[in-house]
Amino acid sequence: MADKEDRMVILTDSISREKISIDPMTRKFYLELSEPSLEDNRADVDRLAAAVEKLLGPVTVPLELMRRIPGVLRDACWRVTVTVGMVAPGVWSLVDVEPGNTVRRHYGLAVDIGTTTVVVYLVDMHNGQILGKAAGYNGQVALGEDILTRIYLAGTPGGLEQLQRAVLDTLNDLIGRLAGEHGLAGREISAVAAGANSTMVHLFLGLDPSRICMAPYIPVVNNPGFIPAGQLGLKINPLAPVYCLPSVGSYVGGDVVAGVLASGLHRQPELALFVDIGTNGEIIMGNRDWLVGCAGAAGPALEGGVAECGMRAEPGAIDSISIDPGTGRVRYTTIGGAPPAGICGSGLVDCLAELLLAGIVDRAGRFRDGRREFVVVPAAESATGRDIVVTQVDINNLMRTKGAVNAALELLLESVGCELSDIDRFYAAGAFGQYLHLESAITIGLYPDLPREKMIRLGNASGEGARLVLLSNRKREEAEAIARNITYFELNANQVFMNKFIGSKFLPHTNLDYYPTVKAKLVERGLVGDGES
Amino acid sequence: MADKEDRMVILTDSISREKISIDPMTRKFYLELSEPSLEDNRADVDRLAAAVEKLLGPVTVPLELMRRIPGVLRDACWRVTVTVGMVAPGVWSLVDVEPGNTVRRHYGLAVDIGTTTVVVYLVDMHNGQILGKAAGYNGQVALGEDILTRIYLAGTPGGLEQLQRAVLDTLNDLIGRLAGEHGLAGREISAVAAGANSTMVHLFLGLDPSRICMAPYIPVVNNPGFIPAGQLGLKINPLAPVYCLPSVGSYVGGDVVAGVLASGLHRQPELALFVDIGTNGEIIMGNRDWLVGCAGAAGPALEGGVAECGMRAEPGAIDSISIDPGTGRVRYTTIGGAPPAGICGSGLVDCLAELLLAGIVDRAGRFRDGRREFVVVPAAESATGRDIVVTQVDINNLMRTKGAVNAALELLLESVGCELSDIDRFYAAGAFGQYLHLESAITIGLYPDLPREKMIRLGNASGEGARLVLLSNRKREEAEAIARNITYFELNANQVFMNKFIGSKFLPHTNLDYYPTVKAKLVERGLVGDGES
Repeated sequence: MADKEDRMVILTDSISREKISIDPMTRKFYLELSEPSLEDNRADVDRLAAAVEKLLGPVTVPLELMRRIPGVLRDACWRVTVTVGMVAPGVWSLVDVEPGNTVRRHYGLAVDIGTTTVVVYLVDMHNGQILGKAAGYNGQVALGEDILTRIYLAGTPGGLEQLQRAVLDTLNDLIGRLAGEHGLAGREISAVAAGANSTMVHLFLGLDPSRICMAPYIPVVNNPGFIPAGQLGLKINPLAPVYCLPSVGSYVGGDVVAGVLASGLHRQPELALFVDIGTNGEIIMGNRDWLVGCAGAAGPALEGGVAECGMRAEPGAIDSISIDPGTGRVRYTTIGGAPPAGICGSGLVDCLAELLLAGIVDRAGRFRDGRREFVVVPAAESATGRDIVVTQVDINNLMRTKGAVNAALELLLESVGCELSDIDRFYAAGAFGQYLHLESAITIGLYPDLPREKMIRLGNASGEGARLVLLSNRKREEAEAIARNITYFELNANQVFMNKFIGSKFLPHTNLDYYPTVKAKLVERGLVGDGES
Repeated sequence: MADKEDRMVILTDSISREKISIDPMTRKFYLELSEPSLEDNRADVDRLAAAVEKLLGPVTVPLELMRRIPGVLRDACWRVTVTVGMVAPGVWSLVDVEPGNTVRRHYGLAVDIGTTTVVVYLVDMHNGQILGKAAGYNGQVALGEDILTRIYLAGTPGGLEQLQRAVLDTLNDLIGRLAGEHGLAGREISAVAAGANSTMVHLFLGLDPSRICMAPYIPVVNNPGFIPAGQLGLKINPLAPVYCLPSVGSYVGGDVVAGVLASGLHRQPELALFVDIGTNGEIIMGNRDWLVGCAGAAGPALEGGVAECGMRAEPGAIDSISIDPGTGRVRYTTIGGAPPAGICGSGLVDCLAELLLAGIVDRAGRFRDGRREFVVVPAAESATGRDIVVTQVDINNLMRTKGAVNAALELLLESVGCELSDIDRFYAAGAFGQYLHLESAITIGLYPDLPREKMIRLGNASGEGARLVLLSNRKREEAEAIARNITYFELNANQVFMNKFIGSKFLPHTNLDYYPTVKAKLVERGLVGDGES
């Protein structure tokens, strides 16, 4: 593992690895061409294109490859491997011509461009395996921590170019590391599929994101199609198609579509819920017949830097907490076992859940004894020399986050005439989905209280969805169908949502009966009466 | 007309203007889009693409246009005109988005890139009319007069780039003149179709032409497809598709395919002959069922600079000559009525024909009195102060040219089991086809002796074929079918051709009975006996 990876926890693993038949975004064919003669004097490019056409149908040849083809064909004694890629659905164009048989050296990238972190998977497109991965902070973080700051920066002179440059530098750095580790030339990478939220797609492509955050929230593009890598400045084959998974809209991006694709919920008969809580929270609900979704700025409370002692999930971050209900004694773990320096999202959720179960906060999220904060780690033990605390303000923020998720979910359920109890599966995507402790997330009402075996962590579903699309044109079509078919509910300026949000004041839920296992725990500890709801 | 045009005669007119239904290489659509709202919050690019898709089917949107679309849509209050162009047969891509309704401002270029001259026609793609034309010398002439010199130059460091730059400068100069004269911006020109020989196509596209003149004579490409103008450096819309008419091979180029297309011989039941004599001579024979063709370095004798007093068809060039058989007195005309400075191709052909009919040269092309030259204009009358003459060497060269044409034609006829008398139509393409005097060309045996109403001058058939392809996708498909269907006979190293060539020693033909009208004239003047053949 590279140095940078050791210093942080970034989600690069995925649970679900669907078996798919490989029908990748670029294909390679080994060709043994007949040598030209006076009797067969077809032009070099036409000879090559005709051979590909026999295998695949019509193919176009970019001018820059025409210039190289005569030399490669002759140097290789007319035995070459061509790479073809999509320029539009079902339309193939030549991406490369290499001497000899290189069919087994066929590489693509599945990329997850997050607001904070970027993960690049090197995929063997011959067998579908992930050969390696590299992750790093999105270089844009140094220019603006959150999305709104970046959208603002993009509107200033040179800002958009600067932001695009930053994420490209990050990607090229990660790509260079992977290529180096696996002994391949950048030119051998012939395809990219990327899962990213709408703003990240805009900044990656150099498109103005300003209208994403202004009503009526209109992106420049939801489905950008296939863009040659050279037009973006990615240091791989310049003709490699770069495909960003389509967005539903400004607030449900290609990362979510990738996640739904990876979950497979769009192909199942049972009603399923897909939740990705990050800076934004996105909720998709549905089955093989229909899909609804919504999104909102749900997550800041969980991000590093918002809570009083919040920090990113880096070494020294407290990532799990338990509180002895009898003694009030706190146990915790930190990432990497380093001295505690702050609390990351999973620690915060644990803390609130444990505070509730220990009777230190009430169901309204207030400290029962009126204190302003709870000391998780005293100054003497901490790496910072100060108490590491969770404050009433932190709890209020977290309550708002979970309230927004509850309200959004209820809005979706009402819109399709379903109830919470109709939900058969729950998929948690994204970094929080991977690292939040399930019981704690249920205890505070962030996740629904379903049978645990029906609750599935998807891991880096955005990266996994990108890998599926990279390897299968059918999966790409499914992704496009998902984006097209999700009925999106705009929560901004939605009065029904606001009412539900304001009503979502209690832990785990206003109606405790929706959370039977949490109710049982609270009753057992005498924190609520059996008849209460 | 511009200055440069006044100083020379370049073929820019065409006789045949086939009525075609307009289905052009780029299309324009005026769209009134619904404004986005919270209820209809599709992305700008997707909204636009969906509207085009309704009219045309799927369309891809290049990244550079994505960047401009949001601004144009809003500035134009969602009423815009889109231009779409082909990137591959049947595959459409956005070329431009303009505010308001500009459907009637729809411009393309039909281009004839000759070795010596370049002609650009500005075509109104809305109604098919030619709005204007501009012509000039190919800037490559300054780098190398003939094709072989240029192919050699292309092989030297930087030579190919220099040659490409030269023809692009010529084109951009002509385009700039046309755009200026017609008050339109370069960006409004959204398509180009070009007719050119294989070497000119290679140099235009920056492709190595070296193998065109080495056995087995393999071009880099015969059918380059659609190339964005910006990749070539043409100063028009950078996304405009540039389509070079397909070549049959190294020696039958897109200019000839364009000519055959313009003639329509590929759609007629009668056997027809198509001849384009220039630096190279190309002959195509056939009908709607089959096509055969061949080519050879036939024409240098007719080009300026080869004959002793040869010159290009510029003012002062003697372009027609008659010789009084009784007195031997010469009458001539010059281009522009300027004082005679030399003889161009049509003057040379006239001269040989008149010398034969006046009995000054015999049917073997030798001066009967053994002299070495014939004075057309004495020094006192000439602009150069020297005699303007046609020498025995000039005549020998011209005999070789016509011998090569005869031999090639006979080879083609034999290959398909036809005779000269089976030919029903004759099409003369190119500059020589336009300006050679028909009777003289028949008298010396360069053209067959057919009923004159069956002999058709095509004018600038290459430019006209390009115009047809620009305006009609069906015509483009016809051009591709012509290129595919011509069975090409390689004359280089062809022994049958060499034998016939060596045997083609007589004016107008070894077998005088093939030329009944010429025979009649010769008999009438007592130059041959009635029974001779």
